Amino acid sequence: MADKNTTLQELKDIVKAFSKERDWDQFHTPKNLSMALTREASELMEIFQWSGSKESFERVKEKQEAVQDEVADVLHALLRFCDMTDIDLSEAFAKKMIKTAKKYPVKKCKGKPLKYTELDN
Amino acid sequence: MADKNTTLQELKDIVKAFSKERDWDQFHTPKNLSMALTREASELMEIFQWSGSKESFERVKEKQEAVQDEVADVLHALLRFCDMTDIDLSEAFAKKMIKTAKKYPVKKCKGKPLKYTELDN
Amino acid sequence: MADKNTTLQELKDIVKAFSKERDWDQFHTPKNLSMALTREASELMEIFQWSGSKESFERVKEKQEAVQDEVADVLHALLRFCDMTDIDLSEAFAKKMIKTAKKYPVKKCKGKPLKYTELDN
Amino acid sequence: MADKNTTLQELKDIVKAFSKERDWDQFHTPKNLSMALTREASELMEIFQWSGSKESFERVKEKQEAVQDEVADVLHALLRFCDMTDIDLSEAFAKKMIKTAKKYPVKKCKGKPLKYTELDN
Repeated sequence: MADKNTTLQELKDIVKAFSKERDWDQFHTPKNLSMALTREASELMEIFQWSGSKESFERVKEKQEAVQDEVADVLHALLRFCDMTDIDLSEAFAKKMIKTAKKYPVKKCKGKPLKYTELDN
Repeated sequence: MADKNTTLQELKDIVKAFSKERDWDQFHTPKNLSMALTREASELMEIFQWSGSKESFERVKEKQEAVQDEVADVLHALLRFCDMTDIDLSEAFAKKMIKTAKKYPVKKCKGKPLKYTELDN
Repeated sequence: MADKNTTLQELKDIVKAFSKERDWDQFHTPKNLSMALTREASELMEIFQWSGSKESFERVKEKQEAVQDEVADVLHALLRFCDMTDIDLSEAFAKKMIKTAKKYPVKKCKGKPLKYTELDN
Repeated sequence: MADKNTTLQELKDIVKAFSKERDWDQFHTPKNLSMALTREASELMEIFQWSGSKESFERVKEKQEAVQDEVADVLHALLRFCDMTDIDLSEAFAKKMIKTAKKYPVKKCKGKPLKYTELDN
């Protein structure tokens, strides 16, 4: 599988089948899956806990397999959330990009790492 | 866009162009992006903070737009992380699924919400 | 030590000495400590990942030692953050309680688990 | 109130009274409070999202009030968790410090930001 030719639906279907086989639907409520997602994300973060910000690129190379495993776990939890809640993730993404682009107009935030609430009006 | 016909690469390219236009590469280190990812996940989680586990399905309907926005933000941060670190997310996912399937054999964990370290040997 | 007769300063001093002995000040920036704090909190949360909300009281008993270890780790990270940033935690707490009480007037939020932004005006 | 002369029990009592007055015990399960704790921690973390690690000390000064509010919120959630689960936080802390000191012997980890699992044996 490669990003170039894998659709989100294909991955969603794998995640769905995996849980179905284990009879895990009963545990996979939106609340629980949002917790799992946060926890997986924090496990990825832990890898960079004590690295400097720029040095964290080096860290990715040192911990290549762990990093790849953690991003995969995050994706798994996210897809499972969308599967159980009937959310089309690509559609949600496309809609949100329009909002985000409005919140962060190029002119105002070019080269600035501000939150949109901190941008001058 | 729809999950059925959208590849991960297409979404990654959108995220890349978005950041490039804003000259944000300088801030998008693995460390910072892992923090952003965790924060976005916790914002999704906040929506279900006080709901019961099963009631959280109801909550998704009440807060439909917020939920969709938050899953989109999580995906955005995740894709951006993979873009900046040259990780093929689909490939990482496929590899990890094999490991996860081994950690959680159907026989042992069917209908059980245990962590693999808690499964009987 | 017991909550009844232990001050926050006493705990802060223990944490400070612990890090000093290990020459860890150099890693303990506010950014890094806020990451550690989030991660420790998510480790506590993981214990309750698949429990129902009410069943989580039972889970505390089953996992007593793990739960106590995790709350201790959270406190450790929090005190270390306040130590490195010269924040008097009790003072910050007292000030914030006044704000929180205003945000959540008893009349409006009695028996309601709403976020203050969701309270009717 | 000041860290020098405030005990954890005093703060716990304030938190307890605050929730009792609002009839919030019903929502304050260990599961929910562990979620709230994680979320509050991630709100503190958000303040340092785009700062460099060392620059984050500067950021504390710029965002003084926000930082103090967030550490207070974390403490609030932590105390409330311990209140609802009958955990003496100081006692848990003292016990855990002994374990942590064993995991991180001065000799092995002086000046090193490693996780104990990464220390040479």
